[in-house]
Amino acid sequence: MTTPTWKWFIEYTHPTQAHMHGVEQFIYSGKTKYQVVEIIDTDFYGRCLVLDGKIQSSEYDEYIYHETLIHPALTLHPEPKSVMIVGGGEGAVLREILRHPSVERILMVDIDQEVVELCKEYLPEWSQGAFKNPKVEVRFMDARKYLEDTAETFDVIYMDLPEPLDDGPAYLLFTQEFYQVVSKRLTDNGVIALQAGSFNPRLLECHAAVCNTLATAFPVVCSYASFIPSYDATWGFAVAAKSLNPLAISAEEVDKRLSDRKITELKYYDGETHISMFAVPKDVRTAKNEEKRIIADDRPLITY
Amino acid sequence: MTTPTWKWFIEYTHPTQAHMHGVEQFIYSGKTKYQVVEIIDTDFYGRCLVLDGKIQSSEYDEYIYHETLIHPALTLHPEPKSVMIVGGGEGAVLREILRHPSVERILMVDIDQEVVELCKEYLPEWSQGAFKNPKVEVRFMDARKYLEDTAETFDVIYMDLPEPLDDGPAYLLFTQEFYQVVSKRLTDNGVIALQAGSFNPRLLECHAAVCNTLATAFPVVCSYASFIPSYDATWGFAVAAKSLNPLAISAEEVDKRLSDRKITELKYYDGETHISMFAVPKDVRTAKNEEKRIIADDRPLITY
Amino acid sequence: MTTPTWKWFIEYTHPTQAHMHGVEQFIYSGKTKYQVVEIIDTDFYGRCLVLDGKIQSSEYDEYIYHETLIHPALTLHPEPKSVMIVGGGEGAVLREILRHPSVERILMVDIDQEVVELCKEYLPEWSQGAFKNPKVEVRFMDARKYLEDTAETFDVIYMDLPEPLDDGPAYLLFTQEFYQVVSKRLTDNGVIALQAGSFNPRLLECHAAVCNTLATAFPVVCSYASFIPSYDATWGFAVAAKSLNPLAISAEEVDKRLSDRKITELKYYDGETHISMFAVPKDVRTAKNEEKRIIADDRPLITY
Amino acid sequence: MTTPTWKWFIEYTHPTQAHMHGVEQFIYSGKTKYQVVEIIDTDFYGRCLVLDGKIQSSEYDEYIYHETLIHPALTLHPEPKSVMIVGGGEGAVLREILRHPSVERILMVDIDQEVVELCKEYLPEWSQGAFKNPKVEVRFMDARKYLEDTAETFDVIYMDLPEPLDDGPAYLLFTQEFYQVVSKRLTDNGVIALQAGSFNPRLLECHAAVCNTLATAFPVVCSYASFIPSYDATWGFAVAAKSLNPLAISAEEVDKRLSDRKITELKYYDGETHISMFAVPKDVRTAKNEEKRIIADDRPLITY
Repeated sequence: MTTPTWKWFIEYTHPTQAHMHGVEQFIYSGKTKYQVVEIIDTDFYGRCLVLDGKIQSSEYDEYIYHETLIHPALTLHPEPKSVMIVGGGEGAVLREILRHPSVERILMVDIDQEVVELCKEYLPEWSQGAFKNPKVEVRFMDARKYLEDTAETFDVIYMDLPEPLDDGPAYLLFTQEFYQVVSKRLTDNGVIALQAGSFNPRLLECHAAVCNTLATAFPVVCSYASFIPSYDATWGFAVAAKSLNPLAISAEEVDKRLSDRKITELKYYDGETHISMFAVPKDVRTAKNEEKRIIADDRPLITY
Repeated sequence: MTTPTWKWFIEYTHPTQAHMHGVEQFIYSGKTKYQVVEIIDTDFYGRCLVLDGKIQSSEYDEYIYHETLIHPALTLHPEPKSVMIVGGGEGAVLREILRHPSVERILMVDIDQEVVELCKEYLPEWSQGAFKNPKVEVRFMDARKYLEDTAETFDVIYMDLPEPLDDGPAYLLFTQEFYQVVSKRLTDNGVIALQAGSFNPRLLECHAAVCNTLATAFPVVCSYASFIPSYDATWGFAVAAKSLNPLAISAEEVDKRLSDRKITELKYYDGETHISMFAVPKDVRTAKNEEKRIIADDRPLITY
Repeated sequence: MTTPTWKWFIEYTHPTQAHMHGVEQFIYSGKTKYQVVEIIDTDFYGRCLVLDGKIQSSEYDEYIYHETLIHPALTLHPEPKSVMIVGGGEGAVLREILRHPSVERILMVDIDQEVVELCKEYLPEWSQGAFKNPKVEVRFMDARKYLEDTAETFDVIYMDLPEPLDDGPAYLLFTQEFYQVVSKRLTDNGVIALQAGSFNPRLLECHAAVCNTLATAFPVVCSYASFIPSYDATWGFAVAAKSLNPLAISAEEVDKRLSDRKITELKYYDGETHISMFAVPKDVRTAKNEEKRIIADDRPLITY
Repeated sequence: MTTPTWKWFIEYTHPTQAHMHGVEQFIYSGKTKYQVVEIIDTDFYGRCLVLDGKIQSSEYDEYIYHETLIHPALTLHPEPKSVMIVGGGEGAVLREILRHPSVERILMVDIDQEVVELCKEYLPEWSQGAFKNPKVEVRFMDARKYLEDTAETFDVIYMDLPEPLDDGPAYLLFTQEFYQVVSKRLTDNGVIALQAGSFNPRLLECHAAVCNTLATAFPVVCSYASFIPSYDATWGFAVAAKSLNPLAISAEEVDKRLSDRKITELKYYDGETHISMFAVPKDVRTAKNEEKRIIADDRPLITY
């Protein structure tokens, strides 16, 4: 084609910063009770899930996002049996968790049933049948309410949430009050992992504040990050734990654990990747140290 | 501001992928003998140098690009005295090299004198006076021709070049013939470093081919990378050497060398950053292994 | 909404000229045998039919386009009985023609049945049931072939065609050979009308060449134009005839004829509008006089 | 060029409507006391003056805007001697007014001296030396204040103003109070003319309100319009007068007056153009009739 394409998805990350994605087909567009949902086939990144105007994951590189979120925490835990996911609508987190053979139970609590149903219909490659696995239970409700009321404990808890946008469904799942609830529902060896904002050193407020807030509830908090091409950014994540420490395991130990668990299909995560993810550049460390903010229910974090 | 800005710089990285930068002021726009030059004050990244429509470096994050290019190679070398730069018009590479006290001579050979003069005028914060340092010599000519004709040798040689665009000035500085010339002009402990294309796993052709091509001339070739926000990407670099190996030095050793050399002002590079840069994610390693291309004068690499 | 919308249709009219339309919903997107079809709900212009990346008509202002195309020619003819349409997929031309009570037969010949079916399904407000009117016959075939083979004659023939794009279906329906065929299929009082390119004085090549070409087949050729907001332009049309002349009828006469025919629902066309449409600004007249081109089968006109 | 251009001026006319202009060079950008000024060389429309993000006039088609604003009113007046301009910074109105040989004095009152100086420097083709003509006096002050205080009267008064933007300098020059001041400063045969908003039938609020407001001060008010390509729109103007009526003069009379005055160089305006400008399409008349708003100092009109 010699003329430019005419259908575009433009993701604004700032009033004067935007990324233009040429679109082959807009597949679905609608509003759930909680958010605006788009399923878009972009020319470059393939099928994308977009919530409230932000790409959540793309066919092209969702393996990076999901392997980054899931495997460090599960690999860190010597024998994870019970796992909970807060959010996780696409089902790709289920797919990745199920690779770890010791896992016996996965509870996913997502507030937005419509998004989950849309993902099942339009993004079947994300979950690859995981929703039907007998180890998996899915509940549609407020995950915070669930955690406050349940007595169950988990070895690993994931937060796979969109950014805390104004009026979005997620902003009360990033506060110290919430993390204290989470802490009580973790076993002694328990680990949590979550996506935690851009690693761009000047947009680090979100990531740093999330880490600061985690530190009010957990003795161990580690930043890590992966470059997600469809986000145009290296994206931050965090692991927090009562005792286990991801910096204490070597590349060789990561590879050995994956091998012991017979996990061979990963495209992104292995020992060397683990090292690359957890080694944080100096400017990010500096920016993180400068941010003192702690997020609370009455002082929530809202991103652009 | 409630209305969107109206001046934009749109960088296309693909026919259906573009990044929009809101612009405060277009400072300079012109054509040299070799390329189209723009100096732009963007709202988010501050002042940017743009060659042939591609951001080369921005006020916001040029420290990441330039510290990444310069310090691994110089730190690896036990006592670098003579350094050559191919390209490097902004002068920020001079600034960074001059931090290493053992360096006695820096020769910069850039084909485009007009760009260098524009950078002196419009980007003085990049070079911070380095062009006037008595250790520095600048020549305006074809660097390949220079290297073919000279008998001088260097401890470290940098290639700080724009991407090899069609009709751009750089495409004959990425070939195996050129790297063999470079190899002859390196001392026995010599090291070269260069920027080497996107680390996006599906745009890895350029990076992988550059590494393959380097391997035809150097026993040691290592990929490394940093996230450059204004590029919207983790960007690849390479170190190649006759014997020294950047993977063989630990974070502690990097920090010790910097400390011994009394280099304290770096914002980005240190031991932990060194580890993060040289640990390559699995998908990038896979993509690199699959690409067999070697670049030659009669089969040059042209990027979008 | 405080943040900009994220779904856009961008219509390029030139490599460096484009119009951005924020989109509520992309309704349909597909390829027929002849063209790429999009049905789009834009925020400002409502539902739009887009062929090969160009807006054909919008909910907001299709009445302007269709009343402009249809009523001058039909009103000029004292008692039109048989009408043919070349193209006209949306069915809005049928709707407008049927307002003239003397019309007994309308034959529409459109090459692209898929577009017609899509318009029936997605743009029912355009045809308002006209496809089912017993006076209407629709054939899906090459209109030029049809006209060459038939012996039938018509009082009015319309060309409601997309612009003659390279590889588009319409470019052989703008040539002198074609107009001579049309002329033979017109009654003695016969009139033709067609859309005929932008009235932008520096993009007048298409309009002027179409008029010049019409003049090789018809004694009377008149330019006229209306401002079509969704085209961002005043758009040119032409009436050609064997003897009747639209410049010879006054505003009062137009109003009288519409009144005699009990046509009262028009939103755009009446006597004063007739005058505004047929009075051509001096710069357009000048540009038209300077363009000598005549379009022929072996020298077709291709627009951007 | 096979890749798209990378410098763009994007003019928003609505939160979801924008026009993209590829830019060759941003010539000047700055802030005066009253407005943000850009001088831009676009690829398609040539040099443009942009105030507060809106194109005021372009090299390509400023003759349409300025001939439309100036000649109907001056031609209507049998022997205009004294003319006042409110605004008119580019100086093109001076150029056009000076074509009428009876004019002895032109007073231009523009609040923004910086804009006038920028136009003299960067847009000399607009004024073509008119600022130096001895018939011309320019004052830099609030035109309303000037008109309230002076005792002078004028045969023709023009308002050549940007749209009444929030915080812009012009919004108090569109009110009934202001028009009453203007009326007192007109001679008995006096005429005023002004630009008066888009003629897009659904954006007609501004045009209609201006006409309604003029009607509170003048017995004769006529809408007229021209297609201005660089505005992407047919743009509305108004003539108001104490007695003279532009609808009462025929195309032949216009041509005769221009000929009597030996005005032969016009590119846009003549008798036929006069007819095309003053004949208003039915939908615009309808929309105008529906809008009852009158603009007052305490109920000003603010456009997007």
